[in-house]
Amino acid sequence: MTASPGPRHEAIGIGLLGFGTVGVGAYRMLADNRDAIVRKIGREFEVVRIGIRDAAKPRIADASLLTTELEQVVDDPRVSIVVEVMGGLDPAGPLIERALRNGRHVVTANKELLAKHGASLINLAAKQGLDLHFEAAVGGGIPLIQPLRHQLSGNDVLKMMGILNGTTNFILTKMAEGGRELEDVLAEAQRLGYAEADPTSDVDGYDAQYKLAILASLAYAKEVPVEGVFREGIRGVSKRDMQFADVLGYRIKLVGVVEALPGERILARVHPTLLKKDHPLARVDDVYNALWLRGDFVGDVMFTGRGAGAEATGSAIVGDIMDVCRNIHLGGAGNSVPLEGVAQLAPIAETKTRYFVRLVIQDRPKALGCIATVFGNCNVSLAAMEMRGLERGLGEIVFLTHECLESSIQLALKAMRNIHIVENVCSVLRVEH
Amino acid sequence: MTASPGPRHEAIGIGLLGFGTVGVGAYRMLADNRDAIVRKIGREFEVVRIGIRDAAKPRIADASLLTTELEQVVDDPRVSIVVEVMGGLDPAGPLIERALRNGRHVVTANKELLAKHGASLINLAAKQGLDLHFEAAVGGGIPLIQPLRHQLSGNDVLKMMGILNGTTNFILTKMAEGGRELEDVLAEAQRLGYAEADPTSDVDGYDAQYKLAILASLAYAKEVPVEGVFREGIRGVSKRDMQFADVLGYRIKLVGVVEALPGERILARVHPTLLKKDHPLARVDDVYNALWLRGDFVGDVMFTGRGAGAEATGSAIVGDIMDVCRNIHLGGAGNSVPLEGVAQLAPIAETKTRYFVRLVIQDRPKALGCIATVFGNCNVSLAAMEMRGLERGLGEIVFLTHECLESSIQLALKAMRNIHIVENVCSVLRVEH
Repeated sequence: MTASPGPRHEAIGIGLLGFGTVGVGAYRMLADNRDAIVRKIGREFEVVRIGIRDAAKPRIADASLLTTELEQVVDDPRVSIVVEVMGGLDPAGPLIERALRNGRHVVTANKELLAKHGASLINLAAKQGLDLHFEAAVGGGIPLIQPLRHQLSGNDVLKMMGILNGTTNFILTKMAEGGRELEDVLAEAQRLGYAEADPTSDVDGYDAQYKLAILASLAYAKEVPVEGVFREGIRGVSKRDMQFADVLGYRIKLVGVVEALPGERILARVHPTLLKKDHPLARVDDVYNALWLRGDFVGDVMFTGRGAGAEATGSAIVGDIMDVCRNIHLGGAGNSVPLEGVAQLAPIAETKTRYFVRLVIQDRPKALGCIATVFGNCNVSLAAMEMRGLERGLGEIVFLTHECLESSIQLALKAMRNIHIVENVCSVLRVEH
Repeated sequence: MTASPGPRHEAIGIGLLGFGTVGVGAYRMLADNRDAIVRKIGREFEVVRIGIRDAAKPRIADASLLTTELEQVVDDPRVSIVVEVMGGLDPAGPLIERALRNGRHVVTANKELLAKHGASLINLAAKQGLDLHFEAAVGGGIPLIQPLRHQLSGNDVLKMMGILNGTTNFILTKMAEGGRELEDVLAEAQRLGYAEADPTSDVDGYDAQYKLAILASLAYAKEVPVEGVFREGIRGVSKRDMQFADVLGYRIKLVGVVEALPGERILARVHPTLLKKDHPLARVDDVYNALWLRGDFVGDVMFTGRGAGAEATGSAIVGDIMDVCRNIHLGGAGNSVPLEGVAQLAPIAETKTRYFVRLVIQDRPKALGCIATVFGNCNVSLAAMEMRGLERGLGEIVFLTHECLESSIQLALKAMRNIHIVENVCSVLRVEH
């Protein structure tokens, strides 16, 4: 390949904050595909500084690039782009802020930071005329963030649904395929490195909640406070739920849902969700992620791909770095508009959907009639039912309701818990279509 | 909604060239979602001129905006963004060139023009420091073009496969579902407005060929001469092929394939293709389009959505207009790097895949052995076979081969046509996985 004949420019300096899985993935991609990347951005680039926290770990980069003084990366006059891949709020947040105040463009994969402080960082970058890119924060290598901010941004987003966490999708897929319980599959996922030793962030839905808050804020160009996003993890999903869902024609996935409600309000929620087997999201298995979106003009669009992993996430980071490089080279950085105002979030009680309810009851005359009456009294009408006899005079019963309000189903369940023939309300899961 | 307090700016002037289905779709979206669009771009905009060719047609826009003097749109000093939605090479091509030379940014949906003259227009825009956006040219409302140019651009694209034409996908879906012949479904599609009175561009694969050439040129950042893209339409696909494909576990789709070959060459081809029923593209039905891509780092990603229609295509055009507006507003236009050099295209003979071959033969002893020997002599080994007796001593036989070279299968078929027991080589279709 011959060198481009254009005018000579200095190489663009890149500083990495963090050099774990994702940082190494991006670093390797920049090295492996260097020639094509330089050709596509029209300019040379160079990683000039890498901030690490543990000096003792062996690293694949030249030792002269490494420093444990993280501020050095942000302050280095050769660094034009700071790439933050350490995660967590502190010190990542203060370092990114310092980078922006120093006039550095920033690329980050930090979903927690963006979910909690994204609006102020985005607005700081806009004020400074700098790029703040974060394609890798949601959906790994799948282009989601920029399509939402750009190509789809003329749409009024009516609804979005996403499978945003690879670990829980792997767990739920294995539970569905193998008829296994969560604990069993979780232990396997931990052995395979798909789940952390402390799986809280994934299994309890925090990771998906962060990502959904980020997507919602971009779709509506407003700040979406993460605590306004309802969150329920997958610990309550059992093998029995999977089996009944299968019989009824559904798969169970951890889904993030955002809906536009009347009065410019939105309802955002993350929870285990029944999806009809022919729903496009129902077929997104293993560690794959996906976002399905319905816009008022574009109709339905869907994006699928690997939601995690060093290489896929590295791909998104390198795409962002290339964009910033092009902007630096051609003089067009900072073309993101600030988020304006705070989105009005509706409470989970206003959710209107179908529900899957699994109960263990005393298997005696009138039991079914009694339960059906409670549902009816709370304005919940039933669409399907499955029942199995258990041992010791008990029965297991699953209801699929027609669409009703979350507040109605909660009322029904409260009443149910006070009926002596109901031994246990085992599961209540939402259904989407 | 309160007006943004920022500094006052003049509204950005937009000129439309063409006001047919797509132009009206974009115009309506700009009107319907005006408040949110202004908020998201941070600036007012206004459609100030609309060039039309037929002054007699009734139009939904104010008559004072309309002109049949198309150059007026391109020359109007109030117009900062020219949106070309007339299609065809002439006068669209010269008008876009004139717009760029006049210092206007351009948004276009013109796949034929981009496939045939894209490189020179992209390079002219880059030289002028102007935006040339064309998200609507491929895949309707699905974000494909910009993700390829930006978020995925660090990847070496190993393979891409796309269902890029909605009309043929509608036809093939109906053929598969209803056991109907092409002519019958085509007539229905024409009645429904899904197919043109002259369906050549869709049915013979030109439309998909143009789109594939555009995608390939962006994936490799090189000019891809459209005539180097192999093209075979769907006229040769019959009800019988559909039925046999179904029995063997496949669907038939018109697929555009781009593969990277050794020596920095690529092989690009559009043809009816058998896809296993569990392949993600096999489930993309009706007028939906999709692009599946495998990159060296990102792994497999897929995008799906409506590939045509006023509203979906309008969505892509408005997304592009908003991007240009942001660039104008924030001073960052023209950030696309020119295409450098011409891609080396390999001939179809170098395709290496599996094949589906349907023959009518004389149903007599040794017939099968004779045919199998011909395949074997040409280095084609067989993976599956189905046979049905026909009337008048004839038999219908379908082979699914193992992977082999296109040149080998063509050699085998040539030999086959000279064997007297072979009455007819009915179909030869490629298989992808």
